[in-house]
Amino acid sequence: MPFLRVAPVLGAIFMVFGLTILVPMGVSWWTDDGALLAYPAAIAATLACGVFLRYLASRRGKQQELQARDGILLVGLAWTLLPLVACIPLLSYFELAGTPTTFTDAYFEAVSALTTTGSTVYTGLDQLPVSINLWRCFLQWLGGMGILVLAVAILPMLGSGGSQLFRAEATGPMKDAKLTPRITETAKGLWSVYVLLSLACVTAYWLGGMSPLDAWMHMFTTLSLGGLSSHDASFGFFQSPTLEWVAIVFMLLASGNFALYFMALIKRQPWRIWRDVEWRGSMLMLVGSSLFITGLLLVKGTTSDPFETLRMALFNVVSIGSTTGYATVDYTTWPVFAPLFMIMLSGVATSAGSTGAGIKMVRIVILIKQTRREMSRIIHPRAVNPVTLGSQVVDNSTIFAVLGFMLVYGGTIIGLTMLLLLSDLSFDTAFSAVVASVNNMGPGLNEIGPSGNYQGLTDFQTWVCTLAMLLGRLEMLSFLVLFTRGYWRK
Amino acid sequence: MPFLRVAPVLGAIFMVFGLTILVPMGVSWWTDDGALLAYPAAIAATLACGVFLRYLASRRGKQQELQARDGILLVGLAWTLLPLVACIPLLSYFELAGTPTTFTDAYFEAVSALTTTGSTVYTGLDQLPVSINLWRCFLQWLGGMGILVLAVAILPMLGSGGSQLFRAEATGPMKDAKLTPRITETAKGLWSVYVLLSLACVTAYWLGGMSPLDAWMHMFTTLSLGGLSSHDASFGFFQSPTLEWVAIVFMLLASGNFALYFMALIKRQPWRIWRDVEWRGSMLMLVGSSLFITGLLLVKGTTSDPFETLRMALFNVVSIGSTTGYATVDYTTWPVFAPLFMIMLSGVATSAGSTGAGIKMVRIVILIKQTRREMSRIIHPRAVNPVTLGSQVVDNSTIFAVLGFMLVYGGTIIGLTMLLLLSDLSFDTAFSAVVASVNNMGPGLNEIGPSGNYQGLTDFQTWVCTLAMLLGRLEMLSFLVLFTRGYWRK
Ligand SMILES: [K+]
Ligand SMILES: [K+]
Repeated sequence: MPFLRVAPVLGAIFMVFGLTILVPMGVSWWTDDGALLAYPAAIAATLACGVFLRYLASRRGKQQELQARDGILLVGLAWTLLPLVACIPLLSYFELAGTPTTFTDAYFEAVSALTTTGSTVYTGLDQLPVSINLWRCFLQWLGGMGILVLAVAILPMLGSGGSQLFRAEATGPMKDAKLTPRITETAKGLWSVYVLLSLACVTAYWLGGMSPLDAWMHMFTTLSLGGLSSHDASFGFFQSPTLEWVAIVFMLLASGNFALYFMALIKRQPWRIWRDVEWRGSMLMLVGSSLFITGLLLVKGTTSDPFETLRMALFNVVSIGSTTGYATVDYTTWPVFAPLFMIMLSGVATSAGSTGAGIKMVRIVILIKQTRREMSRIIHPRAVNPVTLGSQVVDNSTIFAVLGFMLVYGGTIIGLTMLLLLSDLSFDTAFSAVVASVNNMGPGLNEIGPSGNYQGLTDFQTWVCTLAMLLGRLEMLSFLVLFTRGYWRK
Repeated sequence: MPFLRVAPVLGAIFMVFGLTILVPMGVSWWTDDGALLAYPAAIAATLACGVFLRYLASRRGKQQELQARDGILLVGLAWTLLPLVACIPLLSYFELAGTPTTFTDAYFEAVSALTTTGSTVYTGLDQLPVSINLWRCFLQWLGGMGILVLAVAILPMLGSGGSQLFRAEATGPMKDAKLTPRITETAKGLWSVYVLLSLACVTAYWLGGMSPLDAWMHMFTTLSLGGLSSHDASFGFFQSPTLEWVAIVFMLLASGNFALYFMALIKRQPWRIWRDVEWRGSMLMLVGSSLFITGLLLVKGTTSDPFETLRMALFNVVSIGSTTGYATVDYTTWPVFAPLFMIMLSGVATSAGSTGAGIKMVRIVILIKQTRREMSRIIHPRAVNPVTLGSQVVDNSTIFAVLGFMLVYGGTIIGLTMLLLLSDLSFDTAFSAVVASVNNMGPGLNEIGPSGNYQGLTDFQTWVCTLAMLLGRLEMLSFLVLFTRGYWRK
């Protein structure tokens, strides 16, 4: 039984997760924001789930060793079950406040937070108790930690593709080592970088003028490329060029591969970062796109002040492109090219080993090289020119895995868009909702744009978006494979 | 010099093409439609081009043998240069009638006809001289003949992919024979099937109640999956259920592989057709989609009479899905799912070896099997399960070619849509224009929908659509490869 093998680990995750709910509860007590009663039930339920899962497993006597493919089930269960308990504080708070929310909405919000998507179905964020907002944002930061482990531990199992994708980055001592036995150690390494950058970010936000609580909340959602905010006006609330520049820098940094930073750090070779083809790709893509949009806005006469346009374009393009999803303006009023371009960008610009979702830059690099190879094959059918990444040859099975990912990625976007169309959503809304959700980015076009939110969707539409976020977070295949007979066959 | 090697063949094509212009000229003379003077210049120019090209080549003394990859250049030149002369009758007629058209529009119309796309920039078709309408429709039928040769002669060069794709269908004596030396013979076989079906179709249209000239014109654009009509109201002009059923049958037949029909015919084994996995796929896809849309229209209350809805859905879904592009109703007023679904369908439903464009059913079959293989690889990394098509194993290089095609297909659609967005076209119009053009289908959404046409586009937008039609017709790669340095290097 794969389920019994993963139950103890899942139980442990639940128990740790239950303890993290003490953080918003503490803040609620400290700030006396009136939401204190929203937390005890959630903590109790989460701990109870953890205990129950561990008891289930222990009843079977000797604990069975985890097999490689069990990781897929573990991750699938973690990302679908944790939101069940993560949404209890929301359900409780809104119930206690006399404005009950639906389970559909609360679960959506929790999935949106934990997958670092950052779409929201709630308005009046500025009036919510600070601890509820903090919980939403903190969930994103926790989700980000989960994603970093996911990248190390689970993706290598997605065919040799994932493995090589990741190892190509993590050059150095870990390169040829089996990753599975070293998950804990590697995770600790990545988390230490994550925490270091987080501390730098919260300090910068605080020095830049945010209140301490806002600084923490926005740090949580910057480093995780999450994009939730405690303000309806998102980052536009602050109206502060300084804070925008700080956010631009940290969103860019968080779009890179944390394993790369870790290697550069422990080897004290910062130039490794610049030498990494994927890192350069991500940065050039995000900054280059911002410059392009700056030019577009000036040429089309949308704005006139070049420097202000540059900052505005950098902030919003980097925010959407890096899958963060903050906004300082309603960019859907820009020429129609810009918002669609930005939404597409969110699928390709982040690096593997960051907390971004979508295709990831390393796959794009491989795909470009593979397309070039196919074109030269038409001319020279017998020529052999392998695809390389840095100094490594990318083998055919990796390329197949990347191409397979592309198919499933494209198919998922088309299929879910069609589902939303069946519910009579307009084409641009449906398409942008699916792309924004699959890329774990957030805002889309029209009613779900930066000046609106997902509140207006029907329950059916909300569930489609929830599914899209989960599929995107789990790289499609690792989620879909759970629904094949082959997975469950002995 | 590749150009000098292809010049004599291209010259011959131009000379034959010049003679075909005698057909509309003859019709003009016979019906005395007042457009007689539109043709002499076109014939003269076309023949002159042919003579010039042959002279160019003969000056170099001994004719050089064509190399395999020269076919790519030949096809690229044929499909971009023939419209230059094919549009002369349009330019001349409108000039003589005192309502001059632009070169951009006339060239677009000629490319649209020859690629069997069937988008039009002209209105008042019912008032045009019959010979001008006949020329537009006849161009589609000629384009269809060209495409059948293209499929046999050129696509096999697009990596081993094209070759195997086609050979997998053409089982039997030709299976292992080299195709290139047999182009003429094979082309003759395919053309004989094409002509036989054409004769059956024109007879059926005539018996069904069309005037003889309308029967010929609509046969031309049915068999070629072209979709141009001599009426602004397209096929809706006839208001005839009988004619619609005839069109449904012939559009379905023309979506199949003509090589398959040829084999079934000469071997007198009609059951071969049903046994072909791609043929079954195309038919089930088109008919199944029609049934689904029928249900949708009834459930959503768009229509109420089940039998009439069925016929209407079959006609319009098969028409759009088979890349024909006729319409009897403005299906963009149907629930938003339907038109987008139909436009997507046009990319996947036709068989290789038909005159349809897009991805083609055989590639879809391979992609589905490959995706399944990748998913089972995640679970069993060491398992070997080859992709098969009928009784043949599809080798990895074919799968790479198919996946490469998908990338370029997707990239082309995204890239050209973004170009149209830059010119401030709305997203659904831009996307549908590009998909309809790349799939050589025709109508899109909004102003370019079945009740509108491409007239309202700016010159820039028209050229983007022209490029899209050419890229789609030449299967992207064979066109793009001409723009690589590798192609022109010795
Ligand atoms: K996000
Ligand atoms: K067509």
